[in-house]
Amino acid sequence: MARKGLLLILSSPSGAGKSTLTRRLMGWDATMRFSVSATTRAPRPGEVDGREYYFRSRAEFEAMVDAGQMLEHAEVFGNFYGTPRGPVEANMAEGCDTVFDIDWQGGQQIRNSALGRDVVSIFVLPPSIAELDRRLRGRGQDSDEVIAGRMAKSRDEISHWAEYDYVLVNDDLDATFTRLTTILEAERLRRDRQPGLSDFVRGLNREFDAR
Amino acid sequence: MARKGLLLILSSPSGAGKSTLTRRLMGWDATMRFSVSATTRAPRPGEVDGREYYFRSRAEFEAMVDAGQMLEHAEVFGNFYGTPRGPVEANMAEGCDTVFDIDWQGGQQIRNSALGRDVVSIFVLPPSIAELDRRLRGRGQDSDEVIAGRMAKSRDEISHWAEYDYVLVNDDLDATFTRLTTILEAERLRRDRQPGLSDFVRGLNREFDAR
Repeated sequence: MARKGLLLILSSPSGAGKSTLTRRLMGWDATMRFSVSATTRAPRPGEVDGREYYFRSRAEFEAMVDAGQMLEHAEVFGNFYGTPRGPVEANMAEGCDTVFDIDWQGGQQIRNSALGRDVVSIFVLPPSIAELDRRLRGRGQDSDEVIAGRMAKSRDEISHWAEYDYVLVNDDLDATFTRLTTILEAERLRRDRQPGLSDFVRGLNREFDAR
Repeated sequence: MARKGLLLILSSPSGAGKSTLTRRLMGWDATMRFSVSATTRAPRPGEVDGREYYFRSRAEFEAMVDAGQMLEHAEVFGNFYGTPRGPVEANMAEGCDTVFDIDWQGGQQIRNSALGRDVVSIFVLPPSIAELDRRLRGRGQDSDEVIAGRMAKSRDEISHWAEYDYVLVNDDLDATFTRLTTILEAERLRRDRQPGLSDFVRGLNREFDAR
């Protein structure tokens, strides 16, 4: 039966496994689409425009906001980040789910937008702060100062856990991924995500009539 | 992590597989509890008081209603049916889920009770009315007149499908059972069903403080 695409908001502090979970989710099901954010920050080595982010100038970004083309946007560490609306609406119409790798500010804005009813929000917590620290340092690409800044942002991010529909503690990546897909499978079975049901029940009633 | 028990309302027309699904659910997980209804109808052969139903006189039933001991009750085909409140509240406190094998009237009342936020409601549709008819006749224990009455009740029951959180079309019993347990596993991961999360996050904050 055809279904209506949902919007999966996956938030967590940096280092809690969100990016890995998101990447695995993209390979899990052909109907998963990743929402590529737009940003005014400079590309990091290896990042490609339109893949990790749409890299835009400040003027370009502001023009998109003014034209109502952003579903949400926010300023973080002096750079703008935002979600272009068009691809999200196209995914929904095609029966595909859109995955958002965004922070609590973006999550709040999308939940409170016209598309709020289509949102499923999941917060991923680290098993401990010691483990979060270990994972952040394990990347080996950031200075102590950058890591201290990320830890402060992590604390701020974690403080918003209670705004999410579901909460997962990522103490084991495979188990957490299974829980994530279980939530998606269940959410797809919600009545309001199965637009074909009305016609199906009309068919049952025609059968009753014909008896 | 400790969890808060949920109330699973499973409704469907007679013959759509609800009783079989309920029975399998009871063996699926040690924390599933079946809500035994009270009724004023006479026991059928093989039915045991306290197992299929609490069989009560009309006077006894009315006394329970007057004392506020019924979570919901209704009259169907001249008999009273109702859900005793005490066992449901005990299950929730123990972190066990309660499964209700009730019709739309009972479902409506429980959803609109003080326990409504703890309800997960699932409607099971038959793949076709021809198949529903076949399953009803397959039991071989009811007269044509009784079956005609059940089919009329089925149509009435099906008309309430849009009041439920989830809808499953039972075209394959094993697949439907898997979907049912997927919904339960996901619903248990909802933030408000994990009462230990507040303490867990307090622990993370103590770790931040200690850095």
